[in-house]
Amino acid sequence: MKVEIWSDLLCPFCYIGKRKFEGALEQFAHRNEVEVVWRSFELMPDAARESSQDMHTMLAAKLGGDRARAKAMNDHVTAQAATVGLAYDLDHAHPTNSFDAHRLIHLAADHGLQDAAKERLLAAHFTEAQHLGRRDTLQGLAAEIGLDTGEVADVLEGDAYTAAVRADETEARALGINGVPFFVIDRKYGISGAQPSEVFLEALQTIWAEEHPLTMLGGPASASADDAACVDDVCAVPAQGRGV
Amino acid sequence: MKVEIWSDLLCPFCYIGKRKFEGALEQFAHRNEVEVVWRSFELMPDAARESSQDMHTMLAAKLGGDRARAKAMNDHVTAQAATVGLAYDLDHAHPTNSFDAHRLIHLAADHGLQDAAKERLLAAHFTEAQHLGRRDTLQGLAAEIGLDTGEVADVLEGDAYTAAVRADETEARALGINGVPFFVIDRKYGISGAQPSEVFLEALQTIWAEEHPLTMLGGPASASADDAACVDDVCAVPAQGRGV
Repeated sequence: MKVEIWSDLLCPFCYIGKRKFEGALEQFAHRNEVEVVWRSFELMPDAARESSQDMHTMLAAKLGGDRARAKAMNDHVTAQAATVGLAYDLDHAHPTNSFDAHRLIHLAADHGLQDAAKERLLAAHFTEAQHLGRRDTLQGLAAEIGLDTGEVADVLEGDAYTAAVRADETEARALGINGVPFFVIDRKYGISGAQPSEVFLEALQTIWAEEHPLTMLGGPASASADDAACVDDVCAVPAQGRGV
Repeated sequence: MKVEIWSDLLCPFCYIGKRKFEGALEQFAHRNEVEVVWRSFELMPDAARESSQDMHTMLAAKLGGDRARAKAMNDHVTAQAATVGLAYDLDHAHPTNSFDAHRLIHLAADHGLQDAAKERLLAAHFTEAQHLGRRDTLQGLAAEIGLDTGEVADVLEGDAYTAAVRADETEARALGINGVPFFVIDRKYGISGAQPSEVFLEALQTIWAEEHPLTMLGGPASASADDAACVDDVCAVPAQGRGV
């Protein structure tokens, strides 16, 4: 089973959604057969690497300049994050451009470290106010998860994985994805947003069952008059027992 | 997914287009489910097998005899080829008739070697100045990709696969194809010319998504006010949080 998750590193619901999805995965009987692939999506592809604004001012700009309302909305997101155990610090988080961070996630994928990289970068941005647009920050975080320093420097200084990020993004457009997080299971089912863990779990179970239908042995699959079975608290009498 | 590509072996943009398409395929998540079929198209069906002209003189004849201009145009094509890693040698390439080469491509298809044959013949003509109109050249190239010498000789000496080449060509006319390369995807979409890899990739992704629409689970597909999702850098506040 393959779950592809389009998300941005600067999207607060993407980290919350990651935790909610992980909560479902933990409960899922076939979790060891689930492959998770993180796909790139930039909410603000044109954002500057360095910004003098904080997260509240940036959001306020989109709300007609109402900083108090923006801060209240961000505080609400912080409260939501707390319900899944994440201590967001949006007062100090740095708005930036996530393109290089996405390239780093793709590099990590080539070393089997994609989830570790995604987790480390999200934690750095949302809970530690680390600056994901700065090369030295990315270099330090990459070293922490075990990526080779020289290789990371080459990637960050060059344009490696640009095509991989762009391919994820054009694919998102093709799939009609215009918001993140967005979960795609086996390229057949889509789930939008940081839904409750129960929604993810039910989806995983339903899709698994659909792809692995039970083979019925010993008789018909549904309870008919000939089954010795109870359906909706009505117990059918088996044929040979009729009239006894 | 089936991609049919009409092209000629003597068409410089066909080889460049092959590389650009391959670049897209490499980035395409479902590349293992794509079947590529090469279809025949002769740009110069009446061309002589042997010609005393080189490529520049031949092009010059179509430009009112201006050989310098023809060479400049061919040099420009060579520069374009270099951008996709192909070392064209149009100073020495041999103008000829590609009909037998097309028949050979069809024979190779019957042995699951169509792409190998197409690649080998294009490389031979454009980068090695091999003469595709000569039987011994075709015989040698066919042997290189593993075709049976006796069978190849029978095909080249007889008229096998003539009908297959003609069928491709009448179909091209029916589809309104008058230039190559021309890419047809699942007989529904057409792409003309050696477009950038990104164009091919987006087409593959869009058509795939259209043919395999996602079934949405757990709520609306797009981030509405009720989704915990981020769209265009605005993160919607879930319903229970509205008015905060």
